[in-house]
Amino acid sequence: MDIKEQLEIIKRGSDEILIESELIEKLKKGVPLKIKAGFDPTAPDLHLGHAVLLNKLRQFQDLGHEVYFLIGDFTGMIGDPTGKNVTRPPLSEDDVKKNAETYSDQVFKILDESKTQIVFNSKWLNDLGAAGIVKLAASHTVARMLERDDFAKRYKANQPISIHEFLYPLLQGYDSVALKSDIEIGGTDQKFNLLMGRELQKQVGQAPQCILTMPLLEGLDGVQKMSKSSKNYIGINEPAEIVFAKLLSLSDDLMWRYIDLLSLGTLDNIRSWKKRIAGGENPKNIKVEFSKEIVGRLYDEEAAQNAEDNFNLRAKGDIPKDIKEHSLLNIEPDGINIPQLLKKIDLVSSTSEAIRLIKGGGIKINGDKITETRFITPKGGSFTIQVGKRKFAKINT
Amino acid sequence: MDIKEQLEIIKRGSDEILIESELIEKLKKGVPLKIKAGFDPTAPDLHLGHAVLLNKLRQFQDLGHEVYFLIGDFTGMIGDPTGKNVTRPPLSEDDVKKNAETYSDQVFKILDESKTQIVFNSKWLNDLGAAGIVKLAASHTVARMLERDDFAKRYKANQPISIHEFLYPLLQGYDSVALKSDIEIGGTDQKFNLLMGRELQKQVGQAPQCILTMPLLEGLDGVQKMSKSSKNYIGINEPAEIVFAKLLSLSDDLMWRYIDLLSLGTLDNIRSWKKRIAGGENPKNIKVEFSKEIVGRLYDEEAAQNAEDNFNLRAKGDIPKDIKEHSLLNIEPDGINIPQLLKKIDLVSSTSEAIRLIKGGGIKINGDKITETRFITPKGGSFTIQVGKRKFAKINT
Repeated sequence: MDIKEQLEIIKRGSDEILIESELIEKLKKGVPLKIKAGFDPTAPDLHLGHAVLLNKLRQFQDLGHEVYFLIGDFTGMIGDPTGKNVTRPPLSEDDVKKNAETYSDQVFKILDESKTQIVFNSKWLNDLGAAGIVKLAASHTVARMLERDDFAKRYKANQPISIHEFLYPLLQGYDSVALKSDIEIGGTDQKFNLLMGRELQKQVGQAPQCILTMPLLEGLDGVQKMSKSSKNYIGINEPAEIVFAKLLSLSDDLMWRYIDLLSLGTLDNIRSWKKRIAGGENPKNIKVEFSKEIVGRLYDEEAAQNAEDNFNLRAKGDIPKDIKEHSLLNIEPDGINIPQLLKKIDLVSSTSEAIRLIKGGGIKINGDKITETRFITPKGGSFTIQVGKRKFAKINT
Repeated sequence: MDIKEQLEIIKRGSDEILIESELIEKLKKGVPLKIKAGFDPTAPDLHLGHAVLLNKLRQFQDLGHEVYFLIGDFTGMIGDPTGKNVTRPPLSEDDVKKNAETYSDQVFKILDESKTQIVFNSKWLNDLGAAGIVKLAASHTVARMLERDDFAKRYKANQPISIHEFLYPLLQGYDSVALKSDIEIGGTDQKFNLLMGRELQKQVGQAPQCILTMPLLEGLDGVQKMSKSSKNYIGINEPAEIVFAKLLSLSDDLMWRYIDLLSLGTLDNIRSWKKRIAGGENPKNIKVEFSKEIVGRLYDEEAAQNAEDNFNLRAKGDIPKDIKEHSLLNIEPDGINIPQLLKKIDLVSSTSEAIRLIKGGGIKINGDKITETRFITPKGGSFTIQVGKRKFAKINT
């Protein structure tokens, strides 16, 4: 593939490339480049916001490059003492390993495992020693650090910034030195830190990495950045039909934002979608095609088709065809304790949640809302239980 | 000695004690306290400005306490990379050892060697490791650090502050933790750093050190802080008669400042000096007594008496009685090369300096200014050579 085509793929959906001419020079070498992306050492719960970045990494892999999936365990193993009341307990090496596995379980839905190196920055940052950290800290000024947007805002607002927070961008930058990375990818909010890598690499005489920033995906609300805490997210590990249904719930405007940042279809394909809508077609059709693309990538095409079918059945009020079945061996004489059952089969997170849902009319058995917590049914039969709109189970007694 | 008397000695000449009530509690224990004072790892040339602090340490020793003379070699061995053009080369362990010996040569003119521990902070700061430094940096905020006077001024004036400069007060504070010091002494300009020690000790559950700040002594000009670079200093290692003569040159006002900060005579003695001046006595008499006290402490009473006698002789234009003698074995037929002679016996730093002095009429032989660089004299005799007002030598031919 010629450089121009490669560049088109790399730039697609991205926010900024620094510096494009350098990137072209690197691509011209025709050897696999080292693509660096850093991730938190805490147990991850990846969502489509992360997928924007992971997609880009995957595109680099498809172009023949090597991804360094860097887990920033150095600081995680220190434990963050920021904040007066709560000291985040340090992660043990075991914790970090477990968290890394949780990443693996998720990211290889998108990344190519054969072109991915998972690396931990404690390896080289511990080796820096006390003296190395002081030297590193000498490489930049306080004023430079206070230029970073969030620091500037917090400083002006008299919100505390701990001194070690000034060290983190430098440590992240040093990671690039240690890896000799050619390109670093991050969200637009990471630009300052990514530039640190460039600067520190230059200081030690390395060719500076190019940086590529990706936009931050808005959550389902279309306003806040997608995040677990905002509850506006679509998790990479959520069941296929949940992912499908959540994507279908996007507003028509937001759909385009998601398509721009998440679809890996050809640009021609996206242009054809736009034409169809301009021609009067229902945007829902496009949304279905796009959602099936995403589910298909996270799972497979069959799962995508099932998700669509089930969505349609539910839309008609029918019970989806592939719901999970559970068998109850014993039935108590005064009937089945529904909250306990729902908790056991993981349709609710607690019995008290189930009780609330029953009171609110959110639980149906065989299509009818129930009002009691006990349900009497004969042995040897079966019934369908539904929690909210999307969760179903078939119970064999 | 009761606590009140001890406290009077400790407070004498000091600028501030934090916190006096805690200091009293520490003194009440009746055990030797750990007194910490930090010094640069660079080759020192101590002067009476340092003596203010050293005197106070000596007073603590005389009260039975133990002085920890801390040489801050950790940062010295890193090498200070601040500044665009010049990187201060790191000191080797050997350099640091040599510098420490230079300290020893000077400070034990004032300190009691048997109650002094010379310690190096590289010992425990290297052990902190990279993670330890990051943790330490997490203990304080950027805003807190920018409260320090000099940082605040530089930041407002847009003068660069390197991030590692924010680490130094923390490292200095950690020294107190490592030493478990009871009291730290420093100049008034060190107050911020001394307080860091208190704070970090509290954070790890140690009894916080008390801090005692000493005023900064003005140099001979009475304006600038005494320092080698300002050339307004009296060196601890300068010859007795130079120290004496420089002290005699103080203005009458400045004399009291020096007496307050440097005399270890009793307070009664100082009061009697004041009375004598109030009674009309020439301040020069007091100055002589004070100067003899200082020279006596740096050398001994005999040296002090000699310094006074020589000063008086010179004042009358006579040659002092204890000048050094040198013997010349060979005399060239065209006479003695005076610049070379003066360089050899260390009365000038170079032959060109000697030539300049001869031209300016600053060299006398047997009391007469010379104008030639050659001096013809018979073998088997002797002559006196004088450079400027104060430097003399007797040459035997």
